[in-house]
Amino acid sequence: MEEKEISQAVISRLPRYFRYLGELKDQGVERISSQDLSELMSVTASQIRQDFNNFGGFGQQGYGYNVEFLYQEIGKILGLHKKHHLVIIGAGNLGQALANYMNFEKRGFIISGAFDLNPKLYGKTIRGIKVKPMEELEQFVRANNIDIAVLTIPKTSAVEVANRLVDCGIKAIWNFAHVDLDVPEKVQVENVHLSDSLMKLSYNINRYELDKN
Amino acid sequence: MEEKEISQAVISRLPRYFRYLGELKDQGVERISSQDLSELMSVTASQIRQDFNNFGGFGQQGYGYNVEFLYQEIGKILGLHKKHHLVIIGAGNLGQALANYMNFEKRGFIISGAFDLNPKLYGKTIRGIKVKPMEELEQFVRANNIDIAVLTIPKTSAVEVANRLVDCGIKAIWNFAHVDLDVPEKVQVENVHLSDSLMKLSYNINRYELDKN
Repeated sequence: MEEKEISQAVISRLPRYFRYLGELKDQGVERISSQDLSELMSVTASQIRQDFNNFGGFGQQGYGYNVEFLYQEIGKILGLHKKHHLVIIGAGNLGQALANYMNFEKRGFIISGAFDLNPKLYGKTIRGIKVKPMEELEQFVRANNIDIAVLTIPKTSAVEVANRLVDCGIKAIWNFAHVDLDVPEKVQVENVHLSDSLMKLSYNINRYELDKN
Repeated sequence: MEEKEISQAVISRLPRYFRYLGELKDQGVERISSQDLSELMSVTASQIRQDFNNFGGFGQQGYGYNVEFLYQEIGKILGLHKKHHLVIIGAGNLGQALANYMNFEKRGFIISGAFDLNPKLYGKTIRGIKVKPMEELEQFVRANNIDIAVLTIPKTSAVEVANRLVDCGIKAIWNFAHVDLDVPEKVQVENVHLSDSLMKLSYNINRYELDKN
């Protein structure tokens, strides 16, 4: 499929399409019009068509979209037809929560290893994965074809660990540390800055109350 | 301060400004030019000026910005000068990770209660907070002036729990459940859809590899 530079805004919306289509598929729905999908997802039908046109359109108008086909195609665009191998760095509550999240595995994201600085956690098992000391990180990443590292460590150590990961050839970092990482362009980074998200919520509460008065 | 409708894109960037300014402040920096701030944050100086102009501009050009003042002002815009009281619903690993995150409290987000469906967790203490049964939710929210509910429960129960929260007057939901909530406009919702974020990462890995070949 020919793909041009797609904006990150469009890409951000793809997982949501994928999620809704997955639910429709589970409910046995075979076809859906852009109008019905639009109502279900509370976005305009024109937005949906525009988004899909970035990838060639996917479906005949009038006929609507074939749910299974669209689900598979968007999955492919998202790279979900390939397996990814992950390590979690930081085996605290957040790292454990992510490791225990079964849905990631269903989508092809396999948690292969977990690492921590804290010797008390060494050997602890999370879903069959033993927590290892940080010294073993590089060797493990290289030997196990790891492409994604999940950083759930404090920001003070995140930058150094990110550099180590880059040096051993990681392809992507899913960053929960509250710091922006400066890595080469070939390394993909997706930040989940929880505090930022909470502050945005706080802004919207405050804004609503100011508007009300 | 007079504020017009500000786009969510601008609002999304405010916490990042706040974070960088807090770090500068901690380092004892008193003034910073938009040029230096721009380099530090890897955004254009014109973007910074445009963003700040939404709120009246904040600083004299040439002189640069007063770091402490700007930090305080952005904090106020984000509503961080007011305390927020939170309940966590779902006391599993993710709920515990969030409850244990000290930084939230530093910013005025006080975790007041934790709830779970699982009787095994009742009475368990997370940072001094006892996990309570779901039946006590409404009474607790009303009696303790709770404004934010953190939903770390499976999507199957999230919709029902969100409705219960709306009925007892919650102002905002920080939603980690993998479902879109349909709540009245007066209730602010901020979604953290972790799977969506991981899929976006997968897209970018896939995209990079396709481009390379």
